[in-house]
Amino acid sequence: MIKKVKKDDTVVLIDESYRKIIIDVKSPTDKFKGVGVFNPSDLIGRKYGEQIKIGNKQFWILTPSVQDKLQALKRQAQIILPRDSAHIIMNCSIESGFCVLEAGIGSGSLTIALANAVAPEGKVISYDTRSDFIDHAMKNLKMANLEKYVKTKVKDITKGIDEKELDAIILDIPNPWGAVSYSFKALRVGGYLCTYSPLISQVENTIKEIKKYNFIEVKTLENIQREMIVSEFGTRPSFDMLGHTGYLTFARKVL
Amino acid sequence: MIKKVKKDDTVVLIDESYRKIIIDVKSPTDKFKGVGVFNPSDLIGRKYGEQIKIGNKQFWILTPSVQDKLQALKRQAQIILPRDSAHIIMNCSIESGFCVLEAGIGSGSLTIALANAVAPEGKVISYDTRSDFIDHAMKNLKMANLEKYVKTKVKDITKGIDEKELDAIILDIPNPWGAVSYSFKALRVGGYLCTYSPLISQVENTIKEIKKYNFIEVKTLENIQREMIVSEFGTRPSFDMLGHTGYLTFARKVL
Amino acid sequence: MIKKVKKDDTVVLIDESYRKIIIDVKSPTDKFKGVGVFNPSDLIGRKYGEQIKIGNKQFWILTPSVQDKLQALKRQAQIILPRDSAHIIMNCSIESGFCVLEAGIGSGSLTIALANAVAPEGKVISYDTRSDFIDHAMKNLKMANLEKYVKTKVKDITKGIDEKELDAIILDIPNPWGAVSYSFKALRVGGYLCTYSPLISQVENTIKEIKKYNFIEVKTLENIQREMIVSEFGTRPSFDMLGHTGYLTFARKVL
Amino acid sequence: MIKKVKKDDTVVLIDESYRKIIIDVKSPTDKFKGVGVFNPSDLIGRKYGEQIKIGNKQFWILTPSVQDKLQALKRQAQIILPRDSAHIIMNCSIESGFCVLEAGIGSGSLTIALANAVAPEGKVISYDTRSDFIDHAMKNLKMANLEKYVKTKVKDITKGIDEKELDAIILDIPNPWGAVSYSFKALRVGGYLCTYSPLISQVENTIKEIKKYNFIEVKTLENIQREMIVSEFGTRPSFDMLGHTGYLTFARKVL
Repeated sequence: MIKKVKKDDTVVLIDESYRKIIIDVKSPTDKFKGVGVFNPSDLIGRKYGEQIKIGNKQFWILTPSVQDKLQALKRQAQIILPRDSAHIIMNCSIESGFCVLEAGIGSGSLTIALANAVAPEGKVISYDTRSDFIDHAMKNLKMANLEKYVKTKVKDITKGIDEKELDAIILDIPNPWGAVSYSFKALRVGGYLCTYSPLISQVENTIKEIKKYNFIEVKTLENIQREMIVSEFGTRPSFDMLGHTGYLTFARKVL
Repeated sequence: MIKKVKKDDTVVLIDESYRKIIIDVKSPTDKFKGVGVFNPSDLIGRKYGEQIKIGNKQFWILTPSVQDKLQALKRQAQIILPRDSAHIIMNCSIESGFCVLEAGIGSGSLTIALANAVAPEGKVISYDTRSDFIDHAMKNLKMANLEKYVKTKVKDITKGIDEKELDAIILDIPNPWGAVSYSFKALRVGGYLCTYSPLISQVENTIKEIKKYNFIEVKTLENIQREMIVSEFGTRPSFDMLGHTGYLTFARKVL
Repeated sequence: MIKKVKKDDTVVLIDESYRKIIIDVKSPTDKFKGVGVFNPSDLIGRKYGEQIKIGNKQFWILTPSVQDKLQALKRQAQIILPRDSAHIIMNCSIESGFCVLEAGIGSGSLTIALANAVAPEGKVISYDTRSDFIDHAMKNLKMANLEKYVKTKVKDITKGIDEKELDAIILDIPNPWGAVSYSFKALRVGGYLCTYSPLISQVENTIKEIKKYNFIEVKTLENIQREMIVSEFGTRPSFDMLGHTGYLTFARKVL
Repeated sequence: MIKKVKKDDTVVLIDESYRKIIIDVKSPTDKFKGVGVFNPSDLIGRKYGEQIKIGNKQFWILTPSVQDKLQALKRQAQIILPRDSAHIIMNCSIESGFCVLEAGIGSGSLTIALANAVAPEGKVISYDTRSDFIDHAMKNLKMANLEKYVKTKVKDITKGIDEKELDAIILDIPNPWGAVSYSFKALRVGGYLCTYSPLISQVENTIKEIKKYNFIEVKTLENIQREMIVSEFGTRPSFDMLGHTGYLTFARKVL
């Protein structure tokens, strides 16, 4: 079954270094960073999965996966990497239909992963104190075609949470301990709180605050990922490795 | 909003060491490993989130999350841990509504994670050569209330794949290279193949086979997780750490 | 050149699980934990490197290496592992002829490694507040035939250091920050201070104190070691892994 | 006790980024890479440990430690890092007075560490097939004032070993398995063989060969080091981390 690009499609172009650009076929622009000048409507009728030439580069055309959406995202602030988003979604038991809250929105990286996980019936609410971050992140969510699952608020989560009965709350802010009391109230029974913090002292302050409330299953994890290079010469771990992203702390509300 | 246990509910009981037992309230049995003898219908009317005494132990009552389902699972074979399942779901871009295939089923650990990720409209197809493994795993899926999303086959995946246009295929078998050609055919364009292998030589043989087909974005990852112990005495990494689970290899089909 | 065991030798017996017992051939006892009852003078005339039977077990006879001495050591307290001792010796640039101070002595594990590194002309001075620890450790040093390089003192290093112009000082005590000022005075110019601490807060308190003095090249390292299992079935990292030992902090005195 | 620089001294100059240059005070040159133009005899009479200004940079003057010698080394080929040298010395039980063989010499990094460990009575023999590598490495050893402990040979170690009764042999060559049989013969009973290899297949081939001889305590280790960043903002692991250096395989000769 060969699918072809149609006029209302959004596609991802992947070059031979696996850099990705997500393109709305009916977009009026003809300049795309990393691709060059071309008319996106020229893609109509091309086969999904085939490699095409634009300018002097080859690109595969595919329907965007959530990995593509995360990798094509335009960064403004430091992002939560997909590997950490994966642990957040698993450890918070987030699933289709859930209503989850995050703060702040950053560049929308975690937001995309969460929106993808709660779709098609769920909702992500995202607080950030800076409206420019929200605007930038929502552009990424639009590119990812996930904006309909996200509701944003220019709001400081350490001043309060409006929502109730949330399935999960994820805090990626410098002082997550300031939002623990509000998070406890806003979570449903059995719901999960998660904080993402690069520094040990942030973890310690957060856990000290968490212990004042009826949270169980409190734990802090560090996740390290290393690529293995498999070539004709043999196999070895990659020399390039990110030594640290952030500590993930999880806790679960009971009565 | 206080919810109470009703007669058709399935609940998880969590003891103070965070061991978990999932119980169907209308179950006719009154003996539960790790709990003791009690009548599950006694739970009716108790508040979700409260702690109750059964025998001489305290248990919290909650609605089972996917984490609870994975932790309450009864093991028969070596399982894929939730942390690896999280990476598989993220790197294969699995989402609600997808149709994914796994082989073998093992104890159903990855199956639970996948079923939870594709629900409510998606499907997991699971091959295993041993019907006793399938029977055991399906008991775990019933406990997890996810059996309706899973279809099983007593079948050797290295002999062929019946399905077409699959969104993802995950191989946890000793010789995944034997199923690469069938996987290429059975995947949709843009779909992901993943193999989970503890040994380097398995990875090498698999990648050698993968390179014969039009797969892109081929990569092998090792994921290591360490808990941080945060106590009144101070913070340190846990001394207990699992040095290795399996290497995860990913590849994506193009034309 | 075949060497044979002589009456004044000290040998190591290594069983087939690589457990090690160091034995003085002229020892009057005939009971050895892990070996059983036998007369050590029976070893005289046996070839070094050969495997002999004692009771129902096979043992290789070798001249004890420093690894043997470290592995045969009888533990009383938590020990500094050889891998960490290796980093301490390298990062403190300890060499033959140096005079180094450690506190506390523990079971004498680091003491053995240091004595071996400074021999034959150097000296290790070891403080501990508990004379029973010193007695136990010195038994291990006697077994290792390294006691002549070690001088002990029942003394709290956070109350002062008697020595001057030390090449290195290694602190394995709960409150190393309490000995930083004395260490600065007792080190020669260019000499190294090292602290071994399991907890982050210990590292932070120590570095805060170190920064009050003219120390340069201040750094904190975490060293993780994993064994690779290479067998006929293939190669993989070991599942068994120690997640943490201690953080090593280093600093170097200038004027 | 204040020591001052004398006319026959060799000193290390350390700048404020901890870059190091080792300088022979009576050297006739006046140009030093990383320092600029100055007359090294101007250092005479300056206090060890003080900071001096040369050009527009500040430098501490110290007597070179082995760490300084290793860090000041001029690289030509990929080097064995000090952290791996530390494990090699510890796991091969190398001590003052020993006679050890290495191949190849590379830039002389391991050679410096070994020479420092066997001094003042021991010896390092170093084989390399390329005389230009030997020449470059010996310049580093001269700078380190350790050349008197090292004897070099332009020789392929996979063609044979001239020496006998060696305490340890360390192989850092692409095909260490080719030198295992010669190494077995050249080692004393109880002596250690070590190989350093980045690739898994190198480890596998080496161990297959090692198993043909009477070696015991065969093991392969991977060592990972991460720096902890401790600042006024808090503590976290460094983002910069080297994912891999080489696997270290150890084995010990018996009869």
